Amino acid sequence: MRWVRYTTAGRTGYGILEGETIRAVEGDPFAGWNATGAQHALAAVKLEIPVVPRTFYCAGLNYVEHVIEGAKKRGETPNIPARPEIGYRANNGLIAHNETVIIPADATEKIHYEGELVAVIGKQAKNLNQSEALSCVMGWTIGNDVSERTWQRADRTFWRSKNSDTFKPMGPYIQTELDLEQAQTNVRLNGEVRTSFATGHMLFSCATFIAAMTKYITLYPGDVIWLGTDGQSPDVKSGDVVEVEITGLGTLSNPFKRAEG
Amino acid sequence: MRWVRYTTAGRTGYGILEGETIRAVEGDPFAGWNATGAQHALAAVKLEIPVVPRTFYCAGLNYVEHVIEGAKKRGETPNIPARPEIGYRANNGLIAHNETVIIPADATEKIHYEGELVAVIGKQAKNLNQSEALSCVMGWTIGNDVSERTWQRADRTFWRSKNSDTFKPMGPYIQTELDLEQAQTNVRLNGEVRTSFATGHMLFSCATFIAAMTKYITLYPGDVIWLGTDGQSPDVKSGDVVEVEITGLGTLSNPFKRAEG
Repeated sequence: MRWVRYTTAGRTGYGILEGETIRAVEGDPFAGWNATGAQHALAAVKLEIPVVPRTFYCAGLNYVEHVIEGAKKRGETPNIPARPEIGYRANNGLIAHNETVIIPADATEKIHYEGELVAVIGKQAKNLNQSEALSCVMGWTIGNDVSERTWQRADRTFWRSKNSDTFKPMGPYIQTELDLEQAQTNVRLNGEVRTSFATGHMLFSCATFIAAMTKYITLYPGDVIWLGTDGQSPDVKSGDVVEVEITGLGTLSNPFKRAEG
Repeated sequence: MRWVRYTTAGRTGYGILEGETIRAVEGDPFAGWNATGAQHALAAVKLEIPVVPRTFYCAGLNYVEHVIEGAKKRGETPNIPARPEIGYRANNGLIAHNETVIIPADATEKIHYEGELVAVIGKQAKNLNQSEALSCVMGWTIGNDVSERTWQRADRTFWRSKNSDTFKPMGPYIQTELDLEQAQTNVRLNGEVRTSFATGHMLFSCATFIAAMTKYITLYPGDVIWLGTDGQSPDVKSGDVVEVEITGLGTLSNPFKRAEG
């Protein structure tokens, strides 16, 4: 099942996407819903981010090649995480499919994409073990963890390097089923595949993260966990379009534009 | 004016605190409100955290003595932040006045309090300059940034050291006026003042943080900014009670209890 969050006639709500048609619902996939009988053409509505997270978790370094290549670029020894230690991003950065990433006027040229699988939590969860960990996940979507690498290295926190407004595209929809073993992440820059990796080849799986997190942390419906990226991004410039496609989850597409100074 | 968020008869909402009486409202202090005419005795309701943040910002190191004393304890050179770079905490950790901080069973004895001033954002804000920065703040409350120092040093992120469930007491209410020049923060452990500092003697003021943040980040109603602490905490043990008092903002009191292993 595919859940979309969308706005039409000034109202934002959830619907079920079937082909190019949205079946409107009252309520939401977290607290409960009923079909209203109304339908909309996908092309006739504005897609929104598929959930406003209660807490926005992000794994950061979670694919080995990304860690090694990043360290090589900086002339450092790769520091591969030994334990699944979750990080955080901020809601102000979130934008929907097709919305524009605004590169701040004073940012350097080192603007990079990171195509990521996103787990969307559907049930409150604490103290889950590894085998039951995925029972709290209601579905999957796509994120693009846009980063300004100069700020990322220079600043004490990731506040502007990763959380500037518009730096966190997420969508286009939440898909409740995912064959992670078969999934491939392809990131296209202006239509050309520039990064491609097996989505499931993570250092720590989603189940491993959830088991570790819920030893100390209660997960709540609407929380999201971004699961990291592999490979490296070229510098993204004003006017470029970045598309992140994950098998079965569709394509998250966003143009980039530099703000005027 | 003092805003409380409270639960009575199974319903959670906002009210205005006058002495020991709550005047109930419909709506909230962010989107708008109307008095309902109903009143409740403060002692007869359950206080809740005064706002569920949209984004939970936290300054971290923002008082010089706290940085110097912390470094001294660890045998390191103090690294005083050169710029106002904001950090983040997570909503799962939030608990209300009088609720219990649960120390995880496997935590070390190095459980510390940090009594902090909290700014509550009332208006959407971007690109504010220093002189107008506080115009987006609707009021002030108190936070206790509870930390497990061994995990804080050992882990790659602050996930469990600062964001374990119950590690973020906030309250008791939001006060719309604050004389920051005259304010003193006193932290009491089992009734005895153990840490005391001038609340306003920050490295970077709230206005400085907001001006810096809103160059890149849109602040939204309900966002909170925790502004750091001064001094050092003794180790807090199961059975202890920590009270953070800030002049004009009341007292945030929370018992601590260690979970059974």
